[in-house]
Amino acid sequence: MNIEILSIGDELLTGFIVNGNAAWIGERLTRAGHRVRRVTVTGDRDEEIAGAFSEAVRRSQAVIATGGLGPTGDDRTRYAVAQILKCPLRFFPEYHDRIRKRFEERDMPLPESNRVQAEIPEQAEPIPNPVGTAPGIAFQLGKVPCFVLPGVSAEMRVMLTEWVLPRLQGSGPPEVFESRLLKTANISESGLQDRLHGFDSLFPGVRLAFLPRRAGVVLRLMVFAVSTENALRELDAAEEFLRKQAGGVIYGRDGEEIEDVVGRLLLAKGWRVAVAESCTGGLIAHRLTRVPGSSRYFERGIVAYSNAAKMQHLGVPEEMIREYGAVSPETARAMAEGIRNLSGADTGVSVTGIAGPEGGTPEKPVGLVYAGFADSTRVLVERHRFPGDRHLNQERSAVAALDLVRRALGGMQ
Amino acid sequence: MNIEILSIGDELLTGFIVNGNAAWIGERLTRAGHRVRRVTVTGDRDEEIAGAFSEAVRRSQAVIATGGLGPTGDDRTRYAVAQILKCPLRFFPEYHDRIRKRFEERDMPLPESNRVQAEIPEQAEPIPNPVGTAPGIAFQLGKVPCFVLPGVSAEMRVMLTEWVLPRLQGSGPPEVFESRLLKTANISESGLQDRLHGFDSLFPGVRLAFLPRRAGVVLRLMVFAVSTENALRELDAAEEFLRKQAGGVIYGRDGEEIEDVVGRLLLAKGWRVAVAESCTGGLIAHRLTRVPGSSRYFERGIVAYSNAAKMQHLGVPEEMIREYGAVSPETARAMAEGIRNLSGADTGVSVTGIAGPEGGTPEKPVGLVYAGFADSTRVLVERHRFPGDRHLNQERSAVAALDLVRRALGGMQ
Repeated sequence: MNIEILSIGDELLTGFIVNGNAAWIGERLTRAGHRVRRVTVTGDRDEEIAGAFSEAVRRSQAVIATGGLGPTGDDRTRYAVAQILKCPLRFFPEYHDRIRKRFEERDMPLPESNRVQAEIPEQAEPIPNPVGTAPGIAFQLGKVPCFVLPGVSAEMRVMLTEWVLPRLQGSGPPEVFESRLLKTANISESGLQDRLHGFDSLFPGVRLAFLPRRAGVVLRLMVFAVSTENALRELDAAEEFLRKQAGGVIYGRDGEEIEDVVGRLLLAKGWRVAVAESCTGGLIAHRLTRVPGSSRYFERGIVAYSNAAKMQHLGVPEEMIREYGAVSPETARAMAEGIRNLSGADTGVSVTGIAGPEGGTPEKPVGLVYAGFADSTRVLVERHRFPGDRHLNQERSAVAALDLVRRALGGMQ
Repeated sequence: MNIEILSIGDELLTGFIVNGNAAWIGERLTRAGHRVRRVTVTGDRDEEIAGAFSEAVRRSQAVIATGGLGPTGDDRTRYAVAQILKCPLRFFPEYHDRIRKRFEERDMPLPESNRVQAEIPEQAEPIPNPVGTAPGIAFQLGKVPCFVLPGVSAEMRVMLTEWVLPRLQGSGPPEVFESRLLKTANISESGLQDRLHGFDSLFPGVRLAFLPRRAGVVLRLMVFAVSTENALRELDAAEEFLRKQAGGVIYGRDGEEIEDVVGRLLLAKGWRVAVAESCTGGLIAHRLTRVPGSSRYFERGIVAYSNAAKMQHLGVPEEMIREYGAVSPETARAMAEGIRNLSGADTGVSVTGIAGPEGGTPEKPVGLVYAGFADSTRVLVERHRFPGDRHLNQERSAVAALDLVRRALGGMQ
């Protein structure tokens, strides 16, 4: 089917927001075998929105629009659709009740301005919104089906997938497309490239891209094939080769984060972890506890910014800090052992370093970081020199510490 | 001037690339006082490109297009423009020499396919490309000036700034554009709208947009005026009105985060803060310590996930947890007081709640969160009910706790 995407909102025209919704919809439609012929972005004025719909239905067999369904004065899409359909808005009490319920669940009174979100042009059909307040709007212009979804991505995605896509007549794709991400830590783009030499000639049907991200290089594999099975078989073979060649630096696949992998390894061993952080300031604990169910293995975290906290909570001896400094392999070791002993957890993790921008010296510059790991049999300490600004140094330190845990638990260290 | 942006390329329609170029151009044009009326994305076929140009010049006073100027077979823009102008392509030897030189500098032979990049429709003017191989194309359709720039962002940006923008000056009214963001916490979009009633009639020259973000609603103010001074004066007046009407829910402006504001308030008082977290798992400590120089006021943080940690580090009595539960106003209060007493910091902050997806009960559902604040004279506890998933609940809980600190330190609580 030839489909046009219509994105509505002044914020898109003034560049305040990048049009990620259109890209997401375009990818989903393409994967489903449809052809996106055009994306049109228009502002928040009734006549512009109405005009864009009228033009789109002359070109395409279906129109998918997003934006302008909120409760505020600059949300104009429902009025523009009513204008095109030459009909009044109709109030749906059941949607108003649903909106009220969502507010009640949060112990908040329902603001008067939310009422309009339960209004839909009389000749249109509401599209259920399982994750937000405003229903979408489905209608026909001539013979062309049009769908209006909220601009809030999380709502748009669910509604497109569950309601709109099944209603589009598909003309099956001649090809399927599959892709896979492999994430690495603690290796540079060129270092990784050197290890993966020969990939292109071994896997001519798989496109390999190197994507340098903030905390590590991501490999993207892309395959077009005649069937999903074939595509997945090619991807599996390519992944196996890459994992072998890369020598343990690949920690995860697709949406998998390093904390997911560490969490799984801890669960498999039935171990609990406790964290002692200095320069990462709580980021390691935060990442570990982002994972649903992490209370089964995360015991506690101490953000020991001050030396007093390092001594009081972690048992780091005052003389050690005086002799070697708070940023030293000795302190990293004492912190990992200290948090483990204190908490009774099976493993202790520590980070101490200088995130910057202040606090560096010629001997201990900004970006110098020690990560520590302790279990019942050993203590490991690794030294890193990161080149970034404060936020980047914090992120990379957290990933480095979590990756040390991954390798230690996985028998790679 | 009313301007339309035309983005050319199949990879934009299939969502493989997000349209960052259009956002960048939209922002630059808006800042230069122009109005972007529409963005159109079209594919790599001659007739589609030609059609999009013909439609655009009927709507707008200028058209800026990007993409399709490369050397490969799917780069069709120059042919489409020649078709609209009904003229042949003309070969520019000087551009071909320039392209050859760029390859020679990299010790590479010039591929034959690059020859087309030196071809421009006879009735068009080349736009110099100081950083790449292909020149752009400038032409008029009727009275409407059209500019085609490469899709490569670095090239497009230089050519737009140095060549296109100066040629758009003076053809429209001398307007400047200024905008401002005001960030809020702990209020819904519609609740905020109700408080800000009357804004549009009081400030007809200021456009107000409501942008719902993950952890709170952002207000965006936009002004077109004859001078920067006038624009800023209007923005200041509008901000003053909004702050008064909003009743303290506005915590920051533009790039300012809530942790920046809290950090400034702590520095102003010369106070230090210590944090006791449960469901936020280190996120509050992480956000506070993201701020450069935060070691001057951040004393320590405890992520007391287990009840043992709550008792051991924070002095929460075992009977209290048994009687009221770990998620209760009593425990939030005891945690805030406990971390303050234990650390010797001037203020203690606490959060305890159920982030989900597991752990909820009918009495204490997922999303129930208590935030606490303690200083030498008082302890404050606030109750929240968040509707989101785990990550959203964690983010909103952290912002809610930091906002409690902001209001408490700012004398608003």
